[in-house]
Amino acid sequence: MNDKQNNKITSRDVDFAKWYTDVVKAAHLATYSNTKGCIVIEPNGYAIWENIQKVLDSKFKETGHTNVYMPLLIPESLLRKESELVEGFAPEVAWVTEGGNKKLDERLCIRPTSETVFSDYYRDTINSYRDLPKLYNQWCSVLRWEKETRPFLRSREFLWQEGHTIHETKEEAEAETLSMLNIYNNFFHEYLAIPSIVGRKTDKEKFAGAEYTYTVEALMYNGVALQSGTSHYFGQKFSKAYDIKYTSRDNKLQYPYQTSWGVSTRMMGALIMVHSDDYGLVLPPRIAPRKVVIIPINNTMEVMSLANDYLDKLKKEGIEAYIDNSDKSAGYKFAEAEVLGIPIRIEIGKRDLENDMITLVRRDTREKMQVFTNTDIIHDVKVLLEDIQRDMYDRALRRREEMTYTCTDIENFKDIINNRPGFVKAMWCGDAECEAKIKEIRGCKSRCIPFNEGKISDKCIVCGKEAKELVIWGIQY
Amino acid sequence: MNDKQNNKITSRDVDFAKWYTDVVKAAHLATYSNTKGCIVIEPNGYAIWENIQKVLDSKFKETGHTNVYMPLLIPESLLRKESELVEGFAPEVAWVTEGGNKKLDERLCIRPTSETVFSDYYRDTINSYRDLPKLYNQWCSVLRWEKETRPFLRSREFLWQEGHTIHETKEEAEAETLSMLNIYNNFFHEYLAIPSIVGRKTDKEKFAGAEYTYTVEALMYNGVALQSGTSHYFGQKFSKAYDIKYTSRDNKLQYPYQTSWGVSTRMMGALIMVHSDDYGLVLPPRIAPRKVVIIPINNTMEVMSLANDYLDKLKKEGIEAYIDNSDKSAGYKFAEAEVLGIPIRIEIGKRDLENDMITLVRRDTREKMQVFTNTDIIHDVKVLLEDIQRDMYDRALRRREEMTYTCTDIENFKDIINNRPGFVKAMWCGDAECEAKIKEIRGCKSRCIPFNEGKISDKCIVCGKEAKELVIWGIQY
Repeated sequence: MNDKQNNKITSRDVDFAKWYTDVVKAAHLATYSNTKGCIVIEPNGYAIWENIQKVLDSKFKETGHTNVYMPLLIPESLLRKESELVEGFAPEVAWVTEGGNKKLDERLCIRPTSETVFSDYYRDTINSYRDLPKLYNQWCSVLRWEKETRPFLRSREFLWQEGHTIHETKEEAEAETLSMLNIYNNFFHEYLAIPSIVGRKTDKEKFAGAEYTYTVEALMYNGVALQSGTSHYFGQKFSKAYDIKYTSRDNKLQYPYQTSWGVSTRMMGALIMVHSDDYGLVLPPRIAPRKVVIIPINNTMEVMSLANDYLDKLKKEGIEAYIDNSDKSAGYKFAEAEVLGIPIRIEIGKRDLENDMITLVRRDTREKMQVFTNTDIIHDVKVLLEDIQRDMYDRALRRREEMTYTCTDIENFKDIINNRPGFVKAMWCGDAECEAKIKEIRGCKSRCIPFNEGKISDKCIVCGKEAKELVIWGIQY
Repeated sequence: MNDKQNNKITSRDVDFAKWYTDVVKAAHLATYSNTKGCIVIEPNGYAIWENIQKVLDSKFKETGHTNVYMPLLIPESLLRKESELVEGFAPEVAWVTEGGNKKLDERLCIRPTSETVFSDYYRDTINSYRDLPKLYNQWCSVLRWEKETRPFLRSREFLWQEGHTIHETKEEAEAETLSMLNIYNNFFHEYLAIPSIVGRKTDKEKFAGAEYTYTVEALMYNGVALQSGTSHYFGQKFSKAYDIKYTSRDNKLQYPYQTSWGVSTRMMGALIMVHSDDYGLVLPPRIAPRKVVIIPINNTMEVMSLANDYLDKLKKEGIEAYIDNSDKSAGYKFAEAEVLGIPIRIEIGKRDLENDMITLVRRDTREKMQVFTNTDIIHDVKVLLEDIQRDMYDRALRRREEMTYTCTDIENFKDIINNRPGFVKAMWCGDAECEAKIKEIRGCKSRCIPFNEGKISDKCIVCGKEAKELVIWGIQY
């Protein structure tokens, strides 16, 4: 990676959309495939997804969930049983109409989401309250026939997890919906270093078929919002549509209560758009597949032996590290380590070694630190990894706070959305018409009704009538 | 699980096919879905698959492979570039013809396997010998429009991993093909406790588009063979069909060499059919999601406190264990633990405790051992888990040896295949016609040409002409 190659990344302040795809390509996260609207997730991208999976999967299991696998294909008749879901998804599904050289009697859609198949399975397997709850999750790919696609953010096929649970009582199902939202939110804060906000979606923006939807919303560097995870409470909608009944403790036939919740490879898009810069990818250490790269500037015995010594010690501590001993120039290696988003780089040079020094460089700030070789480097690396993780979160939080506005006047609202977008807090009467009017401003949508936020005025910012909710608004991906 | 329920499992000596599906259902591994030919993999089944994935994935990574994700859908024109592959798979693919409410200009097939998309990707990304090798793998689902389906053994959709590698030289690609075969074979021996045999497929039985195919073959309890994993060497077939070229070390444009290799959820079928019995599932400890169940026969404070003490100690040692403290009878719990295939059950009863005794029961032999509570139970459990693993392998090996025959006479061959099937070793001239004649005997096929086996005669068992190869034959799933 020489200067010329590094210049391939457009500046994010010049053209954010182009900068984004440049970073995706330069860091070898993904590339376009010859299947329209679908990407190839390359090793560097997939390794991040594997780390995300590892953490979330263990959190799901700790809270009593187990993994299953449901069919990819859904018969049309099964999909059509819940009318709102069909209306929401029918325009964007792909249909299999031929199989084994024959035209099929019934079309099969490739799952856009699996509420229908889980409900069908639950109907066949749940009989008594003793069979409840079922706390199931699946990791899979889903397909939605998007017209405009962008790597990770909106792709016809994407990878995700979808949890589908079923419960005896409303209370239990509602607690599950909230509990999974919190797992997501904590994951964003603790691992992705993204200060997400959570709340309830308005009726207009909720999931097709849900009684209500909770959402995890994140703000990107350019002030655009990204819906990054959702948790839905279905009440008895699906159990009634799919005729799922169980015998209750008092020996009556009852409809159980359901939830679903999911996050996807879209989180990779959030990671890029919140943290990365004009030099390439910046990854929070806790989710970075490789935490440290050791770059020997010369290949003298002394330099190489120290590099190997550090590598061994880091590995022993369970810190993923590697030595870049390719035949490229040191400058190229430094730039490449930056493009790839390796959190820490250790530079070992012959001349520095003569003064018993090496250099640590943190990727997030690009700050260089000269360190004596007789200090405990492994300890320094550990502390630095924690510092980077915390600082990345703090910077993103500060940016989010700077880009979060409070509005009581619609002209002011318009000015913000048109000229310096971000999250805008404003009061709302609850009327869908007022929500629609705000959408006329650059497509601005309600992000969520946050929990436990006070009033900022008594009046709806659109109609001036009595306000019911404080809503966070923003333009979105 | 009372006696009545246990009787739900048909005896494997009475009706093996029915026994198989009974075990799949009773152990809650999988169930039929309402998508024809597709199953739901339930938590107990999926947990086994997760363990298989964990072990294999780490072996792939140790040998330098990385995971990627390629599109599910393949444009027809892309599929058609390699003629042999198309001929092999076209009759059994599912076609997407409509998406987003529109008829598509070009049909897209759901991947039956991904040589085509990997090759397409390699063409676009490989330029120089410096880009080689690429050692990629993906975990995904694939679809093949099978007419007759059976859970795990033959399902329209199944889960698998498919490795696709590309190399500078023939030697390197051939070494990879063999190395992955060995990883599979070792995995079968060390984890699944299945004494698989390996070798080369005849031309008739090799993979469509491969120069040659190595296979892992296992023998089921009823003497039927199961092809359980394959590793293919493609030479330059795909690189020529897909126009993949790289600049070699001597600055010439060259076609690289490719391999692919895969194992699937079919291994779950092998696990069942090799080890399980009329009481349900039997799992080798190394692959069992839960190794130990503790069953308190009474719920006195003393019994429960010892149960909890054992659970803590087992967990501390990293041995997955659980207490069955449901309100079912002890007899029901014992039977259920057997159906589920938990390798060891610890029975703790009030009366035994008065004599300072508890009971250990191993699932594979159903043997009971009375143990004093003052012995180191955790140590006993560890030793027993290893014993079970080894004994399961040894029993399966003994059975395979008993069911492996050597034939030089075709009448004798017919008699064996028709009346006491198993692996049959017999010499073959290499002629496809002779192979076809053997297929007339109950559909018997060549399983493989094993490595380094001596001759057993000079003559082909069918035509009597000069024999070229020793072949292992058998009827198959």
